[in-house]
Amino acid sequence: MKNILVIGAGRSATSLIRYLTANANAENWSVTVADYDRELALAKTKGAEHTKAIQLDIKDEENLGKAISEADVVVSMVPATFHPLVAKVCLKLKKHLVSASYVSPEIEAMDADAKQAGIIMLKECGLDPGIDHMSAMLVLDRLRIEGSELTGFETFTGGLLAPSNDDNPWEYKFTWNPGNVVKAGNGTVKFIQENRYKFIPYHRLFRRTEMIHIPDHGYFEGYANRDSLKYLDIYGLQGIRTLYRGTLRRPSFCRAWDIFVQLGATDDSYEMENVAEMTHRQFINSFLSYNPNDSVELKLAHYTGLDLDSEEMFKLKWLGMFEEELVGIEKGTPAQILEHILKKKWTLNEDERDMIVMWHKFDFVKNGENHRIESHMVLEGEDSENTAMSLTVGLPMGIAVKKILSGDIKLTGVQRPVVPEIYEPILSELESHGIVFKESETVCEK
Amino acid sequence: MKNILVIGAGRSATSLIRYLTANANAENWSVTVADYDRELALAKTKGAEHTKAIQLDIKDEENLGKAISEADVVVSMVPATFHPLVAKVCLKLKKHLVSASYVSPEIEAMDADAKQAGIIMLKECGLDPGIDHMSAMLVLDRLRIEGSELTGFETFTGGLLAPSNDDNPWEYKFTWNPGNVVKAGNGTVKFIQENRYKFIPYHRLFRRTEMIHIPDHGYFEGYANRDSLKYLDIYGLQGIRTLYRGTLRRPSFCRAWDIFVQLGATDDSYEMENVAEMTHRQFINSFLSYNPNDSVELKLAHYTGLDLDSEEMFKLKWLGMFEEELVGIEKGTPAQILEHILKKKWTLNEDERDMIVMWHKFDFVKNGENHRIESHMVLEGEDSENTAMSLTVGLPMGIAVKKILSGDIKLTGVQRPVVPEIYEPILSELESHGIVFKESETVCEK
Repeated sequence: MKNILVIGAGRSATSLIRYLTANANAENWSVTVADYDRELALAKTKGAEHTKAIQLDIKDEENLGKAISEADVVVSMVPATFHPLVAKVCLKLKKHLVSASYVSPEIEAMDADAKQAGIIMLKECGLDPGIDHMSAMLVLDRLRIEGSELTGFETFTGGLLAPSNDDNPWEYKFTWNPGNVVKAGNGTVKFIQENRYKFIPYHRLFRRTEMIHIPDHGYFEGYANRDSLKYLDIYGLQGIRTLYRGTLRRPSFCRAWDIFVQLGATDDSYEMENVAEMTHRQFINSFLSYNPNDSVELKLAHYTGLDLDSEEMFKLKWLGMFEEELVGIEKGTPAQILEHILKKKWTLNEDERDMIVMWHKFDFVKNGENHRIESHMVLEGEDSENTAMSLTVGLPMGIAVKKILSGDIKLTGVQRPVVPEIYEPILSELESHGIVFKESETVCEK
Repeated sequence: MKNILVIGAGRSATSLIRYLTANANAENWSVTVADYDRELALAKTKGAEHTKAIQLDIKDEENLGKAISEADVVVSMVPATFHPLVAKVCLKLKKHLVSASYVSPEIEAMDADAKQAGIIMLKECGLDPGIDHMSAMLVLDRLRIEGSELTGFETFTGGLLAPSNDDNPWEYKFTWNPGNVVKAGNGTVKFIQENRYKFIPYHRLFRRTEMIHIPDHGYFEGYANRDSLKYLDIYGLQGIRTLYRGTLRRPSFCRAWDIFVQLGATDDSYEMENVAEMTHRQFINSFLSYNPNDSVELKLAHYTGLDLDSEEMFKLKWLGMFEEELVGIEKGTPAQILEHILKKKWTLNEDERDMIVMWHKFDFVKNGENHRIESHMVLEGEDSENTAMSLTVGLPMGIAVKKILSGDIKLTGVQRPVVPEIYEPILSELESHGIVFKESETVCEK
């Protein structure tokens, strides 16, 4: 019997825990789910066979060490800041570690020791980062082997609402960390286009979008992620002419979101004044010039150059941004206040389902001809618990655990799922869960 | 005989040192000018009577202590980061300290000890901060005494070029720290307008300007400084309806400068790629989308919504921004690269003179009537050494030293020149140096 320890039983762990408990009997596993809140861990394991739920405070190093010492593999679902703590104990006790979080410099530095200890520290093994790495490398490695010359790579992922008949003009709600959605893109965006380094300042980001068509799913709008350049090394793409990573939204989302960016309403760098008495309308008015004769709506239309009856202005009206309704928090930065207002309308109802969309575009030269492969994956959530986000984050980790314990993945050290030994078995099993990439190849004119 | 120690003999110390050496004989002073570069100190003292120039590394605490121990008053002209170091030694040795730099929390914390030691630490005693404090408080205190109710206060300062006949369409060159000019306004601007807190995000700052007319000097353009709110406490203005601080430029400067802001070319948060081979033209192109068929000029006009033959585009052309000329540095952030390019055109020639413009507006209710006082000061530099900037920064400190040594200023502790005991004698003597505020009062309709 092999022991698996999952640390953290939050929303993102739901599908992972379901996968592990469902496989425990057949695979001869014992699954322990640890959380600061034992009730939460219990609710997720649901008393399944071969599972137990325990209380664990990860800041309590003695108990953390005890729990890890009994495991063969640890899956860390803790907040990003605590990952190095868990990793250090895993290294000391020579236990494999799997997680969806980014490889930080602190983790990177453990590589040699992890190899020495004969353990794998498999990071970035969720959705994004995770499935994006795997599905991209599957094609990139194939092109390399067949001798094609890659000239461009673009990749976009979005966490969205599944299509529905409701009247939400944004066709969007929060399906993941709302704070990260509000602050997305803050900073400067860097990418490579036709051999030129390109930079987009944050305040222009949501106006430099790309329209992307995905067969059977229609059009999406993509805006650039912060730093595409670091993927030059991770994917081995030095010398590529175009490299671009981005985020997907429904068409016309970005032009309306841009109103908040233009106002400065997504700024997270300072606390606003008098927040306790602030209404939605006053929040918007804080960023507009003083004029006692004009309405906030008119001032905003003028500020943004939009028509009062434009779709974008209607989207803000639908959110209640012009209402004299109290925000309802005591203090906060503009970004925190905006997040709080948006949650009133952008929180998933019980009967709503989310959707993940991922799309890659590979441009390459094969036998002197310009080719293009487009590859996409679309997954709708099962329900409000097993969301598409939870499935796509959790299943790759669950499968990775299985393949490590079965010996199919033998690699050691700090790893990302960018090598065939890791991504092939995971992508293959993901297909049986409906996480399938569809590819099309075309020959382009030049 | 009283001993005065000036630490730092850079450009900003020129007029201060001239003032002190010119008064040394009559006032029975001995003036010591210390700099890391003794030659620089020598060049500034010019072998005048009662003066000496010494070499001093302020990181060498022993020598710093020795130099300070021989002084009665220390004037610190060192870079901002070193002020606390000098202040600590002054406190320990119980020596008065005068400087133009801001009161930092570290300095603020020395207040009680300075009072105990019987010394004054007079900070913010240059131009801005400095003369702005004094000239504002002169009027604010008068209004308070006569029982008027202050409703609004706006204040603007600019370091500009004196009027000339040259063809510089910006009517601007660097007359002070170029890096600070390039980065000015980065962050969020906060002020109060008609009892409402208002915020302007950086990317809209240079489009929300105010036109200001100064009698005999024409029109100027003002944009807001970062944080006006901290002056609520410093000037005792709690409850005021409007409070706004800003920077002056020549009209139409800001719309052209806004092009750099819109591009993201003033960003100081990341290093660009391939800077060593970058030309001016490529620098601009880095922020524009890829399009092999359009010129950089056309793409920029489209990006900014300006006409190709607009005044703003011409201003960039005059700077050489579209030239295939190497920038000439090895690495740098966008702001550092822009600064380097701008210096090629915006460096003062030997025969050019600078100009300082300061303007205040006070709105108040007197006997039930709305009144307004406008107050301004304009000073042109004498030459390229004794610039208006050097005069307005140095003279207030020089006069403060005189008034401290003569006993006219008896205050102790950490002080700003916002109390009559300090600002009255300084403003009074500044007039004899041509630094004169002209006031006009009008009764306004409401």
